[in-house]
Amino acid sequence: METSTVTVQAPATVANLVCGYDVLGLCLSKPYDVVEVSLINEKTVIIHPIEGFDLPTDPASNTAGAPLIEMLKLIEADLGFEVKIVKNIKPGSGIGSSAASAAGAVVAANALLGNPFSEHQLVQFAMHGEKIASGVMHADNVAPCIFGGVTLVRSTDPLDVISIPAPDLWVTVVHPQIEIRTADARRILKKQIPLKSAIEQWANTAGLVAGFFKKDNDLIARSLKDVIVEPIRKLLIPRYDEVKSGSIKLGALGGGISGSGPSMFMLSKDEVTATAVEAHMKSVFEAISLPHYTHISKINTAGVTVREN
Amino acid sequence: METSTVTVQAPATVANLVCGYDVLGLCLSKPYDVVEVSLINEKTVIIHPIEGFDLPTDPASNTAGAPLIEMLKLIEADLGFEVKIVKNIKPGSGIGSSAASAAGAVVAANALLGNPFSEHQLVQFAMHGEKIASGVMHADNVAPCIFGGVTLVRSTDPLDVISIPAPDLWVTVVHPQIEIRTADARRILKKQIPLKSAIEQWANTAGLVAGFFKKDNDLIARSLKDVIVEPIRKLLIPRYDEVKSGSIKLGALGGGISGSGPSMFMLSKDEVTATAVEAHMKSVFEAISLPHYTHISKINTAGVTVREN
Repeated sequence: METSTVTVQAPATVANLVCGYDVLGLCLSKPYDVVEVSLINEKTVIIHPIEGFDLPTDPASNTAGAPLIEMLKLIEADLGFEVKIVKNIKPGSGIGSSAASAAGAVVAANALLGNPFSEHQLVQFAMHGEKIASGVMHADNVAPCIFGGVTLVRSTDPLDVISIPAPDLWVTVVHPQIEIRTADARRILKKQIPLKSAIEQWANTAGLVAGFFKKDNDLIARSLKDVIVEPIRKLLIPRYDEVKSGSIKLGALGGGISGSGPSMFMLSKDEVTATAVEAHMKSVFEAISLPHYTHISKINTAGVTVREN
Repeated sequence: METSTVTVQAPATVANLVCGYDVLGLCLSKPYDVVEVSLINEKTVIIHPIEGFDLPTDPASNTAGAPLIEMLKLIEADLGFEVKIVKNIKPGSGIGSSAASAAGAVVAANALLGNPFSEHQLVQFAMHGEKIASGVMHADNVAPCIFGGVTLVRSTDPLDVISIPAPDLWVTVVHPQIEIRTADARRILKKQIPLKSAIEQWANTAGLVAGFFKKDNDLIARSLKDVIVEPIRKLLIPRYDEVKSGSIKLGALGGGISGSGPSMFMLSKDEVTATAVEAHMKSVFEAISLPHYTHISKINTAGVTVREN
């Protein structure tokens, strides 16, 4: 252990990918949090006040702190971590803000220790941060954040994350400034769904995965259909249909709600289309004077990356 | 058109593939029907008495006849087809008996005409045979029979069949001699299912497709789980759990009900395992004096094949 501080970039992620509710996700290149972790000589975790947002600094209540507490349980040596976070991903945006801090912290800590833990173990630690953020130990965002590219979480218990070849696509994200609580977004879903719709959904999930492997943009576009979650959750997002249909008219392959929203994302085959889609998104929300942010990004195959000094 | 008769081998197929209910299927090498189609000068379809089983010879009521009637609707020339079938796949076995005759007939007729129709069109014709057999225009069996290998039917309307790379695996099929009507097998399924189970199912369907692309037998084995259909339909098949768990103990990757049963299938990585699985299946049904057939076969990547004269 030559360095006692490691700094990482921990990017935003898009969970669900339309048909792949609760199982698929992809990693963006930006925005990203910057997480700096230093080794200390005491078995504890210290979280410095977060730059950018007012978030808890009690480690057990912090999405970066809880995963590190879990990691320390598996470490015999008398050491701990001190964490500084510059938060660029707005909490509650639906692009994996809590996941980024959690994933960044565990990747940085692992690097500090000489990488004793596997990516699967890091996802497991990071899921404890998600539990704090949403009450559920889910891996939809931490898996693509740590593995990079596109991931399938086939199972969370036992954890089984599968890397899917990431397509060479651009992602446009718009974050309309409304609040949707993840817990609410989960509660409004129907607990029972028609078998017929479920079959359509797994046909499209399988089609999307096949499209990624085959690098077949037409198949990806045909498979980006959600008959279960989108029809309900889109009601929470103003002008949803207008943003989506306009984006597709401009050439986007498809897209939908990012995670539990309110952000929406659209996949495009090139930067020109992704930029036209961004302009359309902006115009829709400007027309109703709804403040919003947009991000354009390639799919990020690296995930969390350690910054060279 | 140099030949006026074409003979094809139309193989059995396994629909559903455990988690991929209604969307995934694979093609076996045997058993297969032999379908001989000859051109005639009249716009009609003639079905000769079927060798092997007592099946309707009225073309509109025959699973090979109905697809050819559909094909003729798109042909301007004054011609028709005469069909002779040697049926080796027992109707009602759950390994695509009706599909084989339908697929064989359209592939042979297409070859006679110089292949004017695409594989997608052939599947569409053949689905009219399935409608006669089961009342539903499904492509679960005709798609793998015509395309070969493993197929995903992402949608039937519009039809969208996707070829998935076939794994280098062996298939053991056992057909216990009991009757399960497809319509009954469909009726006992619940029309509403828990969202939680549906998510598990599409995670596994996506995992299975990824496993086929990655040639990852462990991932295939982990993904061969059905939490929706198997728990209900297995009750119709005596000693189901014993056949399955014993096969997996012997090294099978997994398996389940073929189509709507009563046949069961198991995937194995080599012939030795597939043969041990067959012996186990036989012993289970011999112990209860239930007559049964077994078949061992590699996955057939060619599908229906034209016999060289």
